[in-house]
Amino acid sequence: MMMRPRPLTDGERLWADLMTLAEIGALPNGGVCRLALTDADRAARDLFAGWCREAGLALSVDDYGNMFATRAGRRAGVPHVLVGSHLDTQPHGGRFDGALGVLAGLEIVRALDRAGIVTESPITVVNWTNEEGVRFSPGLTGSGGFTGAIDFSAIRGADGADFRAELARIGYAGQHSDIAVSAYYELHIEQGPVLERAGASVGVVDGVQGVRWLKIDLQGEDRHAGTTPLADRRDAFMAAARLALDMRAAALGLDPEFRITFGRVTLDPGSVNTVPGGASMTVDLRHRDTALLDGVEEMFRALLAGLEESEGVTGTVERAMNVAPVHFDPDMRQALSEAADAIGAAALTLPSGAMHDASNLAGIAPAAMLFVPSQGGISHNEREWTEPAHIALGCEVLAQAVLRHANAGIAKTSG
Amino acid sequence: MMMRPRPLTDGERLWADLMTLAEIGALPNGGVCRLALTDADRAARDLFAGWCREAGLALSVDDYGNMFATRAGRRAGVPHVLVGSHLDTQPHGGRFDGALGVLAGLEIVRALDRAGIVTESPITVVNWTNEEGVRFSPGLTGSGGFTGAIDFSAIRGADGADFRAELARIGYAGQHSDIAVSAYYELHIEQGPVLERAGASVGVVDGVQGVRWLKIDLQGEDRHAGTTPLADRRDAFMAAARLALDMRAAALGLDPEFRITFGRVTLDPGSVNTVPGGASMTVDLRHRDTALLDGVEEMFRALLAGLEESEGVTGTVERAMNVAPVHFDPDMRQALSEAADAIGAAALTLPSGAMHDASNLAGIAPAAMLFVPSQGGISHNEREWTEPAHIALGCEVLAQAVLRHANAGIAKTSG
Repeated sequence: MMMRPRPLTDGERLWADLMTLAEIGALPNGGVCRLALTDADRAARDLFAGWCREAGLALSVDDYGNMFATRAGRRAGVPHVLVGSHLDTQPHGGRFDGALGVLAGLEIVRALDRAGIVTESPITVVNWTNEEGVRFSPGLTGSGGFTGAIDFSAIRGADGADFRAELARIGYAGQHSDIAVSAYYELHIEQGPVLERAGASVGVVDGVQGVRWLKIDLQGEDRHAGTTPLADRRDAFMAAARLALDMRAAALGLDPEFRITFGRVTLDPGSVNTVPGGASMTVDLRHRDTALLDGVEEMFRALLAGLEESEGVTGTVERAMNVAPVHFDPDMRQALSEAADAIGAAALTLPSGAMHDASNLAGIAPAAMLFVPSQGGISHNEREWTEPAHIALGCEVLAQAVLRHANAGIAKTSG
Repeated sequence: MMMRPRPLTDGERLWADLMTLAEIGALPNGGVCRLALTDADRAARDLFAGWCREAGLALSVDDYGNMFATRAGRRAGVPHVLVGSHLDTQPHGGRFDGALGVLAGLEIVRALDRAGIVTESPITVVNWTNEEGVRFSPGLTGSGGFTGAIDFSAIRGADGADFRAELARIGYAGQHSDIAVSAYYELHIEQGPVLERAGASVGVVDGVQGVRWLKIDLQGEDRHAGTTPLADRRDAFMAAARLALDMRAAALGLDPEFRITFGRVTLDPGSVNTVPGGASMTVDLRHRDTALLDGVEEMFRALLAGLEESEGVTGTVERAMNVAPVHFDPDMRQALSEAADAIGAAALTLPSGAMHDASNLAGIAPAAMLFVPSQGGISHNEREWTEPAHIALGCEVLAQAVLRHANAGIAKTSG
């Protein structure tokens, strides 16, 4: 039997950091609400910044509020290996979504210090702003801004908040960064049931499903709830209900990896005793095949035409966001698989149903992601959970791949 | 051919008053937004108060903000004949719902002045506070408070507003009123299609359908929109959509006068990329038969049990309001019908599908309502419309009945 090397990273310390961070924005049932650029987000950023300074990292903040904490390499002026994720959460978020990838990056650079290892290229731990897209849309704001996928004009505050004003308010408005990226690694919880069902401890992500956000507006007629016979109504909520159920029924006949979610529904005027003349809904569509997403968008238009006939309600479909499917770097995926093998943790290969900042980074540099299992596949939920052993294992696999990349990656480009 | 008497009231002046009032809170498409106790409501009250003072009426305000403008009768210390309605509107309201009944009352007392008529008993024109129930629930707040149907502890601000603080803020918080009521008359637009379809100019209302408001809360599970397979979801919106459509299908098989409306739907957490774990809906039910309403409430509980099975979503039903059916006074209905006959306008008899302040007044005194047609049956809508000729006719019929009551009613009780 082969002797396994002593782990580089300290899983217990990473776990303790995660639990400490989870106290900021803590919810009653174990979850976290830390929406981007709120006071809670500021507190989390301040905590992370303090830990980075203790670890001797050089901290900078860019114009999108992204935080970069750099451990210098042997060579100056070469591109950085980035390791990161995000500290913001969903309104009913968990302790691991995002936080894991940032704090694992921090633990990796600490581990290199403890081991007295100096890498060839610099390693930078990153916290990307507003990954979740709750307070500001589109999501992945920070990584989108950094990689040039979006600019400020695209950012809208869901509650009317101004993105740059909020950055300034919490003290995280910096200057444009021109940090060069040689590679981007992101450790994340799976947020789905695949790894747990397969009994795998880690998963190497081969790509990210394409995501499309639609906004559907329905227009019927406001009518008095007491005087208007049911047959005389043009009720926008009834139309919305039919549309949602019909689309779900159709979706169940498509690829099982296809996802459709109606997350926000607003009725207008929203009065108890008025038949709602207006309704608007958000739709989140996901699949690896752009043609299938196009087909579903067409299906919406066809169903809307039917609703005009059956409910007297007209509707429009508008794209609010469109992120193409992403394929991660084969060499980096290979490095992660080999690192997992080396410590006896066979890695599964799987796609990501969720968008991640790695999707944006893949647009400007080689990128890869590693998943650890989510208990019950539950995420965006206070009950989100990952076993400490899986957290430790994921961090160690990532550390080995990052270390190899920060040395060999440089050797390759300079060789 | 019988000579018809010259009308007592001035329909053109009433119409002009209605149009002037409609400028307060005017919406772009001809409608009005004048929610109770907002600045717009204050402006409407101030305008009405000024007109009352010009007409020489004695104005008082009670602890619920109800405005009473009294024209003295020959006898002091006898109960008043009340004529009124409300000046608040729906968010997308029209120019006639409520305003007509208040301003018609004002025109009637002006007409009596012009004709030099002094009635036996005093006539009081009333503006009841927050009839619509949009900013504060339950609706019919002012008439409910005045008649003792509710007290202050029952009033909730939909936007967190405090009822008494808002009354004080707009300067309409008065003292408890012990005005005695001999009868209550209310002129209102029908808000439904019955009179128009029958070609009738006025309608005598025989009663008001019972109204029940329910609050339905659904509990599923927040899940990530990208990672959670459709079959693994407990989506509260899907459950809400099924519940609404199933209830409507069942309702279409009940009495055609039964009404059911889902006016407000809120998803929780309401994030584009989270499967909503929570949903709450308001339901407005109306029918003249209490047993039928009870049956529908039971049907909700049965459907909720089914949703637990089919969608993995649990639910609760709570009553937010319950107003029993009301039957109006036969003698007053007779007086209205005879007044209509006398001016050659055959009156239809019909029930009211909408609640009105008259429902509360019927609990403490004889009460009656007169309807005029709504074009297309449309109300709670900016397109609400009633022809000037119908407005004038309705006001005149009401004036004749009120005049007779303010004299003969006294004669009867003192005879």
